[in-house]
Amino acid sequence: MDFLQQSFTVRFQYRVFFTSHLFDTSNLLLRDFLQEQAQDGAIKKLLFVIDEEVASHHPQLEQQIEEYCSAMPAYALAAIVPVTGGEEVKNSDADFQTLLDAINKCGIDRHSYVVAIGGGSVLDMAGYASAVAHRGVRHIRIPTTVLSQNDSGVGVKNSMNYFGKKNFLGTFAPPVAVFNDTHFLTTLSERDWRSGISEAVKVALIKDAAFFRWLEENAAAMMARDMDAMHYHIKRCAELHLQHIASGDPFEMGSARPLDFGHWSAHKLEQLTDFSVRHGEAVALGIALDSTYSYLSGKLDEPSLRRILSLLEALGFELMHPLLEVADAQNALLQGLTEFREHLGGRLTVTLLKEIGVGDEVHQMEPRMIIRASRWLQEYCLKEQKKDTR
Amino acid sequence: MDFLQQSFTVRFQYRVFFTSHLFDTSNLLLRDFLQEQAQDGAIKKLLFVIDEEVASHHPQLEQQIEEYCSAMPAYALAAIVPVTGGEEVKNSDADFQTLLDAINKCGIDRHSYVVAIGGGSVLDMAGYASAVAHRGVRHIRIPTTVLSQNDSGVGVKNSMNYFGKKNFLGTFAPPVAVFNDTHFLTTLSERDWRSGISEAVKVALIKDAAFFRWLEENAAAMMARDMDAMHYHIKRCAELHLQHIASGDPFEMGSARPLDFGHWSAHKLEQLTDFSVRHGEAVALGIALDSTYSYLSGKLDEPSLRRILSLLEALGFELMHPLLEVADAQNALLQGLTEFREHLGGRLTVTLLKEIGVGDEVHQMEPRMIIRASRWLQEYCLKEQKKDTR
Ligand SMILES: NC(=O)c1ccc[n+]([C@@H]2O[C@H](COP(=O)([O-])OP(=O)(O)OC[C@H]3O[C@@H](n4cnc5c(N)ncnc54)[C@H](O)[C@@H]3O)[C@@H](O)[C@H]2O)c1
Ligand SMILES: NC(=O)c1ccc[n+]([C@@H]2O[C@H](COP(=O)([O-])OP(=O)(O)OC[C@H]3O[C@@H](n4cnc5c(N)ncnc54)[C@H](O)[C@@H]3O)[C@@H](O)[C@H]2O)c1
Ligand SMILES: [Zn+2]
Ligand SMILES: [Zn+2]
Repeated sequence: MDFLQQSFTVRFQYRVFFTSHLFDTSNLLLRDFLQEQAQDGAIKKLLFVIDEEVASHHPQLEQQIEEYCSAMPAYALAAIVPVTGGEEVKNSDADFQTLLDAINKCGIDRHSYVVAIGGGSVLDMAGYASAVAHRGVRHIRIPTTVLSQNDSGVGVKNSMNYFGKKNFLGTFAPPVAVFNDTHFLTTLSERDWRSGISEAVKVALIKDAAFFRWLEENAAAMMARDMDAMHYHIKRCAELHLQHIASGDPFEMGSARPLDFGHWSAHKLEQLTDFSVRHGEAVALGIALDSTYSYLSGKLDEPSLRRILSLLEALGFELMHPLLEVADAQNALLQGLTEFREHLGGRLTVTLLKEIGVGDEVHQMEPRMIIRASRWLQEYCLKEQKKDTR
Repeated sequence: MDFLQQSFTVRFQYRVFFTSHLFDTSNLLLRDFLQEQAQDGAIKKLLFVIDEEVASHHPQLEQQIEEYCSAMPAYALAAIVPVTGGEEVKNSDADFQTLLDAINKCGIDRHSYVVAIGGGSVLDMAGYASAVAHRGVRHIRIPTTVLSQNDSGVGVKNSMNYFGKKNFLGTFAPPVAVFNDTHFLTTLSERDWRSGISEAVKVALIKDAAFFRWLEENAAAMMARDMDAMHYHIKRCAELHLQHIASGDPFEMGSARPLDFGHWSAHKLEQLTDFSVRHGEAVALGIALDSTYSYLSGKLDEPSLRRILSLLEALGFELMHPLLEVADAQNALLQGLTEFREHLGGRLTVTLLKEIGVGDEVHQMEPRMIIRASRWLQEYCLKEQKKDTR
């Protein structure tokens, strides 16, 4: 056989910083970080992308950014580009095109920065544009929702929806840094404050029983918008996600994706509801379904299942959704399993639960068992409702 | 400072195979490679993408592929998608969309394969589509031109042109394997047979004086379409490219790109001529210009310069183009330097020559000196013409 063997490794490194009021002129975190990167004398450009809803809740933000940048002689603020907030920014390519256009017109190069401020949706789109322009310009993420601070914004993936399919387009492209600013969280709606916590429940369930206990003990504080509890939970959740990425298969070349526990139905539900159900809400519903499935298939004991459902309820999540009322094997939701497998590739690999804190990979899910899990949950919810109205 | 540190490495490996008549049923190379990858019992899909001009020069190819695939029980041929040949496939996004559509409709997942057969242009487009669909499906390259076999097809980059700019979009995404089949080369036009050899001259000039001598000694044989000489040159050139990628900075996070010797003007010339000048032809012109610049700025001696120009002539390359007749600093070509810097990012870094086989990085090119080099080359070409007509 006549061949040449190619083989090399690439190292990726970045920090996830935790702060508050990042753009206060007295906060030197971002400035020091950028100053450290500026070695070669040339002035580098910063192109900001801002989630419109973040901008409208923080009307002084643009001016703060301008002032902050003007204090950095090695950097020039190229532009501030507002983009649609929420899933819509990933569904249409209008904002993606706007951003590419700005990257081109501002002459952003591979050593300049696209700094994205927003929820997970805006970060996914901006990360994708940053990854493909000039084969990747430097990208800084400033996540502004709970979900993006504890999960999506600290990882290595970006994406857009295409052909009506969630995350059909995207790449693996680590950021150069992430700045989690608690102050942004203060303006979140109740829905978005809660939504991302389901990712913490997910990662606790498959990796860390002690963190699950902490979540049980602090659910009420978090619901009362206690920022210390929120901060602790975000940092621990981000840490578990980072560790998982680094220790496993960062660019997901294999089949296993334990961090996608509860996600096969979540992605499908988001799509079937035209994204009116938030990712985090759908994940909570997916956790409820797959935990029940784990119980009914004899993996998980009943007290554990009840603890899981109780925690989700304490956090204010719905456990059932009309589209999760799977009555037969032709149900549209079950198509989600096929799409999940196709997106991952290879054998179907779904994580279920053995006990709280311990995941268990399976390569098959029985439609009949999914139907039973759905029924069991419907009954559980009815009983809970009766309790409430009593 | 409150932060979490992320750090991990990712290993990339692939082989570049050399063969002839890859799709003959008696040639087991591709079959054995795929059989080795098929571990988990599931049937995997192969989606073929074929350069239309390759298909028209090899009318039996589709049928051969069908027969070849039918002999692999672990694989299913999903579709054969014809796409435009040449730079046009990178300029418009029509074929890109067609390919994404096929990936979606055929249910190609991250463990299925997009196999692209064609010149560097088709491979760049197909590589890009494969890299962004599902955040990357497996990609096999079957380069069919000299340039794609000795350079573009064996590397880690893909791209599309956008905003009229060469390679504005793209990613770094290694293939899972490359199959170089000499038989495809037999149907190349004289232009495309020659064009890619300039990349070998380039890499020899900056890395390997002995290979440069080999090229001098074998230029006539290659021009007479001697396949053994062509094969030796392709393999050595591919090897030098692979070594460079592995030993340096595979995803080009820094500023240096010595393999882009002669390319700043080449990319601009391709754009200014609306891609009527081939990449390889433009690179030959760029080598002539930057070698002359190296000589005039006192880096390279005159005998070496004359050897370089003689080799390019022996290979049938033009050394001058009307658009390279740079008369003043406002010349459009010089804009290429800025665009080159922007595409790379950071400081301008251009490789010049110290001697044959030894490159030398500089961070500035003087417009006045470029003008002088252009004049010097124009005169050189005039004298050569007179010699010819004598
Ligand atoms: N890349 C990954 O690894 C990954 C992981 C998990 C989820 N995701 C994706 O993340 C997306 C969900 O992100 P999300 O939950 O952050 O929702 P989101 O980005 O859709 O934001 C929800 C809403 O909150 C608004 N908003 C954002 N910050 C705000 C603030 N500080 N104050 C007030 N309003 C604010 C947004 O404009 C939007 O309307 C989904 O598309 C999901 O697929 C990606
Ligand atoms: N990705 C990289 O690292 C990299 C490196 C160098 C060049 N490139 C790119 O490669 C492209 C040039 O590639 P190229 O020189 O292979 O030219 P090409 O792909 O444009 O092909 C030239 C012509 O030859 C035809 N053709 C291809 N194979 C044939 C065959 N076997 N028989 C007959 N005709 C055939 C094509 O249809 C086309 O018309 C440029 O876009 C350049 O930017 C990429
Ligand atoms: Zn999620
Ligand atoms: Zn080239």
